[in-house]
Amino acid sequence: MKLPALHTVLSPALLHLYDLNNTIVVIIDVFRATSTIATALYNGAEKVIPVDSVAQCIAIGNATPNSITAGERDGKVIEGLQYGNSPGDYPASFIKGKTLVLTTTNGTKMLHMALNNGAAEIITGSFPNLSAVANYLIQQKKQVILGCSAWKDKFNLEDTLFAGAVIQQIAPHFHIHCDSSLMAAEMYAMHQNNMHQFIRKTTHWHRLAAYGLEKDLEYCVTPDVANILPIYKNGALQIG
Amino acid sequence: MKLPALHTVLSPALLHLYDLNNTIVVIIDVFRATSTIATALYNGAEKVIPVDSVAQCIAIGNATPNSITAGERDGKVIEGLQYGNSPGDYPASFIKGKTLVLTTTNGTKMLHMALNNGAAEIITGSFPNLSAVANYLIQQKKQVILGCSAWKDKFNLEDTLFAGAVIQQIAPHFHIHCDSSLMAAEMYAMHQNNMHQFIRKTTHWHRLAAYGLEKDLEYCVTPDVANILPIYKNGALQIG
Repeated sequence: MKLPALHTVLSPALLHLYDLNNTIVVIIDVFRATSTIATALYNGAEKVIPVDSVAQCIAIGNATPNSITAGERDGKVIEGLQYGNSPGDYPASFIKGKTLVLTTTNGTKMLHMALNNGAAEIITGSFPNLSAVANYLIQQKKQVILGCSAWKDKFNLEDTLFAGAVIQQIAPHFHIHCDSSLMAAEMYAMHQNNMHQFIRKTTHWHRLAAYGLEKDLEYCVTPDVANILPIYKNGALQIG
Repeated sequence: MKLPALHTVLSPALLHLYDLNNTIVVIIDVFRATSTIATALYNGAEKVIPVDSVAQCIAIGNATPNSITAGERDGKVIEGLQYGNSPGDYPASFIKGKTLVLTTTNGTKMLHMALNNGAAEIITGSFPNLSAVANYLIQQKKQVILGCSAWKDKFNLEDTLFAGAVIQQIAPHFHIHCDSSLMAAEMYAMHQNNMHQFIRKTTHWHRLAAYGLEKDLEYCVTPDVANILPIYKNGALQIG
């Protein structure tokens, strides 16, 4: 049997180079959008609506019953919105049954690009829901793109390491002939046992830790602590 | 003293994200353009003119005394041109004193983008001239972009590994705060002692080895066998 192909895309700026037909695209934004999405849904949020502008966030928040709006810039809640981007902001006692309208820059950009380029299906991935993503991809037996959201189109390591973690779990089920995937798998294999040390060397650890977010970031590289599968349908992410 | 910044750019499609002002850009196209450029100049070519189309290659070849035209597609010399892209095609007995007009796709694209984006200086790098590149960058004390030419904008490992090799030699002289550079340096450190085995796992090894080019490719990952510095001036690369 011919195995489906798997590719890793290291930046939204490279997504157009790949054919998304009949392909599941995994949106990866480890620090912190897709980690927060997994956590909010795991803790009982009804759905998460990812949007790319503050104005849209407010408008959709106003139009949606039992919703909250969230988004950060430079480590602070954006004026006009109610909550932040931290997964720690969304315990079950707060988020259960609510709709989270979340502004993110990189993750939402990648998601909308995947939609516009004809992805057959879109899910979101992060260390907190690593195994749920891996198991789903194995079951579906479809082509896969692991889509790293990067940072304003620049390569980042945290998204790449997550792609590598997925590949480590699912490689025997796919045909992988892609230098990005080979690199991601090797980087993850090298650091899977010292992730909490290594991740401190990355650019966005430094940027976000300066806002006092170290505990958040450690959570965001911890596997399977919010192990559900967010699937994108009708403009929102819900547990699949 | 503040050290100059160094960044690694993993694809021409990401070059626009970086400021090239006052920056030396190292064009990297390991398989095989920049390896062949280093080799031809090391063996006495007067200069190498990189062009991006076959028509331009023929026109410049016709207009340039004592020149030869070269370029390959799918492992064969392109119709209308005289020689191939292999560094082995350019021993001193043949190339000494001649001008090599070379068509390449990825390397020339990256070079022209660097020019158009205002790079202060452009040089070319490959394993055969690794130390010449590293020593020059240390001496110049300017900002550096290590520009991987990639393959039709897709990330490749051979260019990334060369960026890592340069970083390993020059890191103490630069301020490096860039996930692409950190990844490149780690991938090279992991494989520098098994390069000839590891490189066989990459996408373009497979593509090119299928044309019978294995010896060529092994040469292209051998450090310092054509250790000169090609500098781009007035449309051509010459030894600096």
